[in-house]
Amino acid sequence: MRKARAHKGSKGGTSEDLGERKLIKLIQSHLSVMPGLPVPFGDDVSAVDIGKGRVAVLKTDMLIGKTDVPRGMSLWQAARKAVVMNVSDFAAKGVAPTALLVSLGLPMDFMRKDVEEIARGLNAGAQEYGAYVIGGDTSEASDLVVAISLFGTAKRKALVLRSGAKAGDIVAVTGFFGKPAAGLRLLLEGYAASKELRDVLLSSVCMPKARLCEGLALCRSGAVSASIDSSDGLAWSLHELARMSEVGFVVNSVPVADEVRRFAEFNRLDAMELALHGGEEYELVVTVKSKRWADAETAVEASGGRLLPIGKVTRDRQVLLDVDGVKCPVEERGWEHFKSKI
Amino acid sequence: MRKARAHKGSKGGTSEDLGERKLIKLIQSHLSVMPGLPVPFGDDVSAVDIGKGRVAVLKTDMLIGKTDVPRGMSLWQAARKAVVMNVSDFAAKGVAPTALLVSLGLPMDFMRKDVEEIARGLNAGAQEYGAYVIGGDTSEASDLVVAISLFGTAKRKALVLRSGAKAGDIVAVTGFFGKPAAGLRLLLEGYAASKELRDVLLSSVCMPKARLCEGLALCRSGAVSASIDSSDGLAWSLHELARMSEVGFVVNSVPVADEVRRFAEFNRLDAMELALHGGEEYELVVTVKSKRWADAETAVEASGGRLLPIGKVTRDRQVLLDVDGVKCPVEERGWEHFKSKI
Repeated sequence: MRKARAHKGSKGGTSEDLGERKLIKLIQSHLSVMPGLPVPFGDDVSAVDIGKGRVAVLKTDMLIGKTDVPRGMSLWQAARKAVVMNVSDFAAKGVAPTALLVSLGLPMDFMRKDVEEIARGLNAGAQEYGAYVIGGDTSEASDLVVAISLFGTAKRKALVLRSGAKAGDIVAVTGFFGKPAAGLRLLLEGYAASKELRDVLLSSVCMPKARLCEGLALCRSGAVSASIDSSDGLAWSLHELARMSEVGFVVNSVPVADEVRRFAEFNRLDAMELALHGGEEYELVVTVKSKRWADAETAVEASGGRLLPIGKVTRDRQVLLDVDGVKCPVEERGWEHFKSKI
Repeated sequence: MRKARAHKGSKGGTSEDLGERKLIKLIQSHLSVMPGLPVPFGDDVSAVDIGKGRVAVLKTDMLIGKTDVPRGMSLWQAARKAVVMNVSDFAAKGVAPTALLVSLGLPMDFMRKDVEEIARGLNAGAQEYGAYVIGGDTSEASDLVVAISLFGTAKRKALVLRSGAKAGDIVAVTGFFGKPAAGLRLLLEGYAASKELRDVLLSSVCMPKARLCEGLALCRSGAVSASIDSSDGLAWSLHELARMSEVGFVVNSVPVADEVRRFAEFNRLDAMELALHGGEEYELVVTVKSKRWADAETAVEASGGRLLPIGKVTRDRQVLLDVDGVKCPVEERGWEHFKSKI
């Protein structure tokens, strides 16, 4: 889910001016509401009651060539990424995907080998997360469009929504931030890095990973009160969790990836900016009941991951940084990475 | 599901040369197969076992501005049509849709009122067929993309696949054919018609209806052996049903709409061509066990529709026309209507 750019100072009215959040609110305001909807409109996934306390979990998001596939990313990688970005939303809710459908828009000049590469990328993405591609359709399009529909089932009560954070909970993430933002600057803006650093940063762009094992472990632990993925950036995700839970956060430690610090230093960039306002990364941002911290941490470590505490949930509805004695608000914006630059 | 054009004589290799059927086969050949899949890849819908003899039924297909929205069709109508084309596939399998998600690609210059029109069209389409829009995402795109994911549940054994037709069954359809093909010629190619005829033909293009009531009634009757919708045209649907059921058809009566005969006569066009090789229409093409014909007909009539017998299923694996003593094969092609003409 990328945000459409919201331009300041423009008169408003176009979808570009509105930005994704307002667009989704606007669309929602014209929709009839399904009675007894298990997950509110606008959470990471949607769900439908299928009886006996279970729900069908559904997600659809599309990858578009012009805005989501930077130079240097292969079609195999693009197709795989289309799957990963949907799986990441399932991971945030603690749901294992079972099956996916793909609606594929193909430019007419795509070659047979291009289509095969896309098919193999879709399959690789699905298999990596234990799911199967079970159907789909193709259409002619002027730009590559890969729209994925992901399906799974879950116990209704087990779903971890965006709205459950409580004052006193611990805010935590499943990894360090900023690598895709740095990688995109390398790919598209001519910044420099050593071969070793370059490999790590580009891999974070071209081969993103969804934190499915971590999300499933966190859900099973029962220690998590709210969860979201960070595809729109850490800052945006914190603001969204805070808004949906009607709480605030104080962040004491920004989890900047070591590679991002080195890249930023070498290129005289702001590492904090890359980590907070990047996006296109698929860590989970969660709140954990403070008495259950050890359970959550153990569960994630047993799944092969790690859980990093970064702050606390507060009653005061602001998202604040409080690092080394300096306090300031975390701005609610993602980095407008490679749009219109490809 | 529109077919990509398959050009004769070209060297092959591009997605345009391959055509949709081969593209889907090609993609499928690179996919791991889900064990125990209830519906084969390539049928109108996909399904996943959810236990106790029930399946989750899923469908995704996208509408693309350039190829699916002719001049004269409003955004409200386009959004509604995106829903209808997916519901039609559910209708063919006898499944009621419950919920849908939409993945929306919006050009940056779309205005607020355009987005509202799309939202209202999506909601109208969903409500018309008893479903709700429960989630979705928006992205920037160079052309309008409306990718719908439709969801419902059904008894596994009740699903009517493409593959069950048996020699001796009666071939039947839920309405008369050719109106959208004629309507598109009116819209795009400057053909003429009286005001009254024009209204009927344009309405068939801009306000298509899915035969959901008929499809549900046919499914409940238990009299149907195979079913498909006719979105790629009557001829293509007959060939596809024959291929998947490993049978042939003799068609004794082509259900040409009266308005299409009049339009064709006035414009010196071939009415049979419009009815057989049109497409973008959403009738159901089914095969009915001959001893159960009365049950099927009664069920459809009770649902407010009609069931027109047009021929017989044969062991000989050809699709033949046998009208007024003249026999000839039905060519397997759809009409390449408004592609590249909008």
